[in-house]
Amino acid sequence: MTENSDNKGIKIFSLSSNKPLAEKIAKTCGVELGKATIKRFSDGEIKIQIDESIRGDSVYIIQSMSDPINDNVMELFIMIDAVRRTSAKSINVVIPYYGYARYTAKKRERKPIVAKLIASVLENDGIDRVVTLDLHSPQIQGFFNKPVDNLKMDKIMSNHMKKNYNLDNAVVVSPDHAGVARARGFAGLIDSPIAIVDDRDPGNVKHIPTFVIGNVKDKIAIIADDMIDTGNGAIKAANVLAKHGAAKIYVVSTHGVFAKDALERIEQSPIEKVIVSDSIYLDNSKKTNKLDIVSVADLIGNAITRIHENKSVGKLFK
Amino acid sequence: MTENSDNKGIKIFSLSSNKPLAEKIAKTCGVELGKATIKRFSDGEIKIQIDESIRGDSVYIIQSMSDPINDNVMELFIMIDAVRRTSAKSINVVIPYYGYARYTAKKRERKPIVAKLIASVLENDGIDRVVTLDLHSPQIQGFFNKPVDNLKMDKIMSNHMKKNYNLDNAVVVSPDHAGVARARGFAGLIDSPIAIVDDRDPGNVKHIPTFVIGNVKDKIAIIADDMIDTGNGAIKAANVLAKHGAAKIYVVSTHGVFAKDALERIEQSPIEKVIVSDSIYLDNSKKTNKLDIVSVADLIGNAITRIHENKSVGKLFK
Amino acid sequence: MTENSDNKGIKIFSLSSNKPLAEKIAKTCGVELGKATIKRFSDGEIKIQIDESIRGDSVYIIQSMSDPINDNVMELFIMIDAVRRTSAKSINVVIPYYGYARYTAKKRERKPIVAKLIASVLENDGIDRVVTLDLHSPQIQGFFNKPVDNLKMDKIMSNHMKKNYNLDNAVVVSPDHAGVARARGFAGLIDSPIAIVDDRDPGNVKHIPTFVIGNVKDKIAIIADDMIDTGNGAIKAANVLAKHGAAKIYVVSTHGVFAKDALERIEQSPIEKVIVSDSIYLDNSKKTNKLDIVSVADLIGNAITRIHENKSVGKLFK
Amino acid sequence: MTENSDNKGIKIFSLSSNKPLAEKIAKTCGVELGKATIKRFSDGEIKIQIDESIRGDSVYIIQSMSDPINDNVMELFIMIDAVRRTSAKSINVVIPYYGYARYTAKKRERKPIVAKLIASVLENDGIDRVVTLDLHSPQIQGFFNKPVDNLKMDKIMSNHMKKNYNLDNAVVVSPDHAGVARARGFAGLIDSPIAIVDDRDPGNVKHIPTFVIGNVKDKIAIIADDMIDTGNGAIKAANVLAKHGAAKIYVVSTHGVFAKDALERIEQSPIEKVIVSDSIYLDNSKKTNKLDIVSVADLIGNAITRIHENKSVGKLFK
Amino acid sequence: MTENSDNKGIKIFSLSSNKPLAEKIAKTCGVELGKATIKRFSDGEIKIQIDESIRGDSVYIIQSMSDPINDNVMELFIMIDAVRRTSAKSINVVIPYYGYARYTAKKRERKPIVAKLIASVLENDGIDRVVTLDLHSPQIQGFFNKPVDNLKMDKIMSNHMKKNYNLDNAVVVSPDHAGVARARGFAGLIDSPIAIVDDRDPGNVKHIPTFVIGNVKDKIAIIADDMIDTGNGAIKAANVLAKHGAAKIYVVSTHGVFAKDALERIEQSPIEKVIVSDSIYLDNSKKTNKLDIVSVADLIGNAITRIHENKSVGKLFK
Amino acid sequence: MTENSDNKGIKIFSLSSNKPLAEKIAKTCGVELGKATIKRFSDGEIKIQIDESIRGDSVYIIQSMSDPINDNVMELFIMIDAVRRTSAKSINVVIPYYGYARYTAKKRERKPIVAKLIASVLENDGIDRVVTLDLHSPQIQGFFNKPVDNLKMDKIMSNHMKKNYNLDNAVVVSPDHAGVARARGFAGLIDSPIAIVDDRDPGNVKHIPTFVIGNVKDKIAIIADDMIDTGNGAIKAANVLAKHGAAKIYVVSTHGVFAKDALERIEQSPIEKVIVSDSIYLDNSKKTNKLDIVSVADLIGNAITRIHENKSVGKLFK
Repeated sequence: MTENSDNKGIKIFSLSSNKPLAEKIAKTCGVELGKATIKRFSDGEIKIQIDESIRGDSVYIIQSMSDPINDNVMELFIMIDAVRRTSAKSINVVIPYYGYARYTAKKRERKPIVAKLIASVLENDGIDRVVTLDLHSPQIQGFFNKPVDNLKMDKIMSNHMKKNYNLDNAVVVSPDHAGVARARGFAGLIDSPIAIVDDRDPGNVKHIPTFVIGNVKDKIAIIADDMIDTGNGAIKAANVLAKHGAAKIYVVSTHGVFAKDALERIEQSPIEKVIVSDSIYLDNSKKTNKLDIVSVADLIGNAITRIHENKSVGKLFK
Repeated sequence: MTENSDNKGIKIFSLSSNKPLAEKIAKTCGVELGKATIKRFSDGEIKIQIDESIRGDSVYIIQSMSDPINDNVMELFIMIDAVRRTSAKSINVVIPYYGYARYTAKKRERKPIVAKLIASVLENDGIDRVVTLDLHSPQIQGFFNKPVDNLKMDKIMSNHMKKNYNLDNAVVVSPDHAGVARARGFAGLIDSPIAIVDDRDPGNVKHIPTFVIGNVKDKIAIIADDMIDTGNGAIKAANVLAKHGAAKIYVVSTHGVFAKDALERIEQSPIEKVIVSDSIYLDNSKKTNKLDIVSVADLIGNAITRIHENKSVGKLFK
Repeated sequence: MTENSDNKGIKIFSLSSNKPLAEKIAKTCGVELGKATIKRFSDGEIKIQIDESIRGDSVYIIQSMSDPINDNVMELFIMIDAVRRTSAKSINVVIPYYGYARYTAKKRERKPIVAKLIASVLENDGIDRVVTLDLHSPQIQGFFNKPVDNLKMDKIMSNHMKKNYNLDNAVVVSPDHAGVARARGFAGLIDSPIAIVDDRDPGNVKHIPTFVIGNVKDKIAIIADDMIDTGNGAIKAANVLAKHGAAKIYVVSTHGVFAKDALERIEQSPIEKVIVSDSIYLDNSKKTNKLDIVSVADLIGNAITRIHENKSVGKLFK
Repeated sequence: MTENSDNKGIKIFSLSSNKPLAEKIAKTCGVELGKATIKRFSDGEIKIQIDESIRGDSVYIIQSMSDPINDNVMELFIMIDAVRRTSAKSINVVIPYYGYARYTAKKRERKPIVAKLIASVLENDGIDRVVTLDLHSPQIQGFFNKPVDNLKMDKIMSNHMKKNYNLDNAVVVSPDHAGVARARGFAGLIDSPIAIVDDRDPGNVKHIPTFVIGNVKDKIAIIADDMIDTGNGAIKAANVLAKHGAAKIYVVSTHGVFAKDALERIEQSPIEKVIVSDSIYLDNSKKTNKLDIVSVADLIGNAITRIHENKSVGKLFK
Repeated sequence: MTENSDNKGIKIFSLSSNKPLAEKIAKTCGVELGKATIKRFSDGEIKIQIDESIRGDSVYIIQSMSDPINDNVMELFIMIDAVRRTSAKSINVVIPYYGYARYTAKKRERKPIVAKLIASVLENDGIDRVVTLDLHSPQIQGFFNKPVDNLKMDKIMSNHMKKNYNLDNAVVVSPDHAGVARARGFAGLIDSPIAIVDDRDPGNVKHIPTFVIGNVKDKIAIIADDMIDTGNGAIKAANVLAKHGAAKIYVVSTHGVFAKDALERIEQSPIEKVIVSDSIYLDNSKKTNKLDIVSVADLIGNAITRIHENKSVGKLFK
Repeated sequence: MTENSDNKGIKIFSLSSNKPLAEKIAKTCGVELGKATIKRFSDGEIKIQIDESIRGDSVYIIQSMSDPINDNVMELFIMIDAVRRTSAKSINVVIPYYGYARYTAKKRERKPIVAKLIASVLENDGIDRVVTLDLHSPQIQGFFNKPVDNLKMDKIMSNHMKKNYNLDNAVVVSPDHAGVARARGFAGLIDSPIAIVDDRDPGNVKHIPTFVIGNVKDKIAIIADDMIDTGNGAIKAANVLAKHGAAKIYVVSTHGVFAKDALERIEQSPIEKVIVSDSIYLDNSKKTNKLDIVSVADLIGNAITRIHENKSVGKLFK
């Protein structure tokens, strides 16, 4: 298979969730976005028509599982069905934000495992490969039998912060116990210590104050997390850090879900900047001065090119 | 397997699309609706938790594929996943309205076949049987490998009309060529002649007036169709019938989708009554005097009981 | 994948149903037919042996589901099994006539859906693509998950008729209600009006005479259908058209099944010519002067070449 | 599951290959044959309609893979599809004669393995269990993942012979090397020595005369084989045995295929009797005085009853 | 399905990994262990023969994935194959210790996910349900599509400790960050505070001493973990706790793997008692006075009985 | 696909069973062995990590199913899982010795068919092709749906013997009835007669002496078999041959399992030489002067090259 570096034979299609990101990715790959018509009928049904021949092409479909998540997931299923019926060479699904990722185990009886369900539908639908970004639960890779490339944003994020922010005297803060490993990894990249905002006094199970493990006083505190949903965790952590004398508070996170009024509440919080990727599309009207968006387009675009050229993807972010 | 007629071992769960219908069906079956929590998160994700033991039970899940169709379809997928992980004896899916039913063949290149895609997901998800009602395209049964009971509403509808309407001098009208067989069937049940509203002069391909085949003057015209979506077809047919001197115009249809402003436009049309089933939930605020809703609950409830008792379902509507 | 236009890497195999067509298709593609031994044992078993290496080749197997249909279908299954065990690059099944196509929905309880069954066997057997021609029921495409190219004969047929027949004052006739759309399509290609032979008076459900909608008097009536099986429909329509004063009566149809004594009865009917394709093999001894056979070999051969070159197939007949 | 010995819940259906055997089996089980319509259309297509409700029943379908084998196999596939779409409790396939059994390994390159192909279709079609009889190649059981009961005829056959034939001074003869194990087993049951008709002198690879290992002179020679197809093997062995002075020659074999003129040629051979089962239907007109048919109906019927009662089937023939 | 409480229809088979536990489980269920022969050939191959009829029975196979893990896993696969070929009613796999559980996500490129692989084999092999105990990674449930009952040992363990140990002034210790949630859960059950042995100073990424968060001085320290493998983690934690003045040190853990010389090294450590379950068989010769083994047999046996009676399993340990 | 003869794009990985053979195969193919880390944990778990990029490569994994067979089989499953998650172009499994091959049919009730089970796991795991050598039961090919190349060693073996041994006056001996066909084949290659060591007097079922069919006196007797396991069969045959006056006794066999003390017992037997392939690794310490090992590396290596070049593999050994 003589793949050439001009990416001949790649077709990148954008679905509805994040067209601006898809356009940037296509640009990075040096191709035009594929032509397809995606409509909603008056009764809510999705209608998809691919408008150019893709026989023999390696197709990449870009779709984040962001709100309206069920429409976006169904759109993805339907698009794959359309591609599969069209003799493409391979079907590659690029999911910058993989939703339904927080409940990957049956904690209690009689609960579904939706991330697995979606993985099964995608595989039964005939995909060849998944490219995704900073999975909330890395075990989701095991839900697939097909290859999954779980790209990592932290190197790009840390480089961006080192270039654009004063990180002297910084401390990376995990907003809860579960995120300590992630915070440690990021701290290593910017060569800083870490701290933990704990939601419970480990020496007393009855009383549950919130306190900080590690020194944050007069420091630039960088709260590191993989996603901001309602923003509750980050805002609560920021309040505690402020109370403990942090000089400045940043939040760095790959996925900016910003459900409900998250952005407004961040606006009113002690958080100075929220650095997120564009894995989830954010309407211009919603953007505030506190937001600093770092594009993941080059990372994904280069991953696509490397996949097309049969090169290791891991080298991109290691 | 000694199935008893008190329906012990049946569990009927309602999802979000049509809870009032589910409640009536459960009542017909003589059981309470199963307990389950179905929520939407602030980021759009669906959360389902079944709140009672269903080990060894025959589970029936009631969900129409109505607007918001993608949320409802995903809810169905997720509920099945939850049930499958819970050692139920069988998973039976009751879909009073099967959406995405109009595009069951790839008319042009590079189009998906969504009704098949949904069938495949349901089967891979582990269902044992589908109960549905007046499929727009009966070939959808062939999309499944599992048994499909496609219930028929026309006997209930015709009995209802004979009882509540003056059908002396009635004529059943097909609003287009594709529906002639359906109109003929209904005409047979109420013992009346038929007519066809044709959207094209069969002797002239250039000119396309709308005219009526058959005599409708001074008659009670009953436009028979399987579903009313935007209502365009029925309203256009009603206008033509009025112009041709029909005395009264009724519309009888199994599925009342009523997309966008369909009900308002029907209100302003020469249609006197629209008789539909409750396969799709209609908010009270939307209901008008022109609507006459005939419940499909007994038909579905009795089908469930017969399935549970291993009796023929076909006898219910033949 | 550098596919070259000299069709290197294509292997076309003919099974028993229609070897003359397969030879023409191979010729169009510029290749020899692949070498294979296909025998019947004295106890009816089929024995297949592929006699040349096909490792890495794109294999196309030509087989119509014509009489003896079960032998031909089994032969197809067995040949695919042989190819799959032989490391071919892809297995492409070319089915000029897809039989078992009339019962694609379970009209009554407890009936099989054979066209779906065959589709499932073919897919489980490992095929990569189906090429077929004028499916009786286009929903059969939805029975497959793999790409299906449903080629259309009508453009070739209409060109053939315009060139070889006097079509001044022609009218295209649908022999029943179900075929109106097909008749309209064909009428558009030869720029003529249409008529319908109806088997029922739409204004009277009791009395069922046969009459014609549209003007056929003194016209060249072209009965358009997708297949001629027993010929009953076409002959009955021809008789009615003759009674209504049609000047000449042609029948145009893609698939000439000609079951039992169909050809003899056509011989004695008012039909002047029956124009069919060679999708189904017809023994020379059976051919009559009323038959005009138009080959589908170029259409199929060009489709194979376009598939091999990753070009759009739709352009061939649009 | 309280299975009762009156076989309530069993439905036995006969397909076309061997209705008389199916009737006997049903009688053994104490039930009537299930009602189904099985027709051939004029174009060769098979049409099946099950004419009674089988919801919740354990269905047993009786079909031998005898000539016309491809029609019979397709009939079986189609019937299973019909049953599966009808909510039966289980689908059990009873195949008294499993054809396509001689080529179960790919001896040369590019050959199919048809017995495996048929097994895969049956399993994908949704069967729960296979009951068969004296498989030519026992490895066929490994082609299935579902349970296979491979019934053995030899105990019935040996009892029949001991009762109806003078077996003093008998010798069981294997007609070739491959069948020695089978001959030994049968010899053990009637307490006799064995002999082998060898088709090759083991001390000379160039010259290939036919000779007998073991003493047959003045003995009652019983040629034991699993199936008689063209009869060539048995007739040739009989000729050699006659030449070596055998007093009487019987042939005992489970499956009587009798392809082409086998029965006529046996009539003219030194074989005195051919004892076969009724696993394959034999037209009365074909029966000769040399044929002695032992019914397998009780064995199969009892197996069905034991399966239904969850008892060991092995005890029936061990 | 009238399941009766005397467990008629249950067959419990023990494989080689932990026969004493299987015997206790069978006793709890009030049945004898099923008869089966399990042997190793001289070339290492496993030979299994089930020695009694299990037609129509619910089969439970007991096997831990303990050392020799690959033999035990293969034995499980082979036993399931044997059961599936034998018309059992259901195949239930009881895996007290699910090995290969530590690498459930592809942390680096080009690594397998073995726990998923095993889950896929079990499901393709035809199991109906998995019963397991304290999965190291609960996401393994999502690797299955079939129901998984992940039993919890902590209530039994805490009751055992409250009854047999002086827990006044106890503190539950997590030996690392990952186990904090588990420690908190156990602390709740015995109503004690928690502490954490951290392997890193959260305020300094360069220097990595080991220290304790929370007060352990003069307390009874209970190190809580899900499994003890080499014992390194527990011993290291015990050493730190001793240094920090803990009065007594216990280790409580569900799975006692005790790889290599773990038990000897524990013997020489400050650990006073190791309380583990018998999920993994421990040879008597290896047992030391420091070991306190609590049987999981009743929990598993009762789960089997509840599954058989279609009752909720969750109630057993909640 | 322009495969080039320098084997670019081939990656050959060796697992643990037979690294020296894998190295020779790689050399024949002109490539280095692929880099991978294969370890056993202290608790017996296998850990695999592929240490170089294999995106887009055709991967060949070399593993014999020799003792410790279960570890080796699991290693193979796990390696395939690792490769499948890594976007290789194809996964080809090379199994020089396919174990678990002696029980390919369910002789008695309630037995597994392990060779089929392994085939199913390999296929579900996603392999594209199997290359193996002299399968004990050729029907194993039918257990796969994917292409299987069953290489034959006999031509290499016979050439080796003709070159290195004096075969004047040789006779090929089958050690039992089952192996006659194999012995005949080998005899044909070295142009010698055959003899059979029979373990039973065919004329007397009560008494079972061992005797020889055919002349072996003063001859060079070559016992031909496909595998030597405990060596019992070969040694017993050798003793009988010696008693019958054979001048010299060789054993030729593809697979040298040599379970338990087989080699020691051969050492003390009348066998002069045992000629086996290196399909199974034999430790140097075990090798005796009676062993003559012929490498299968070139045969397998050339098969890999031919597969890669899409050439017929059959020509290699025909």
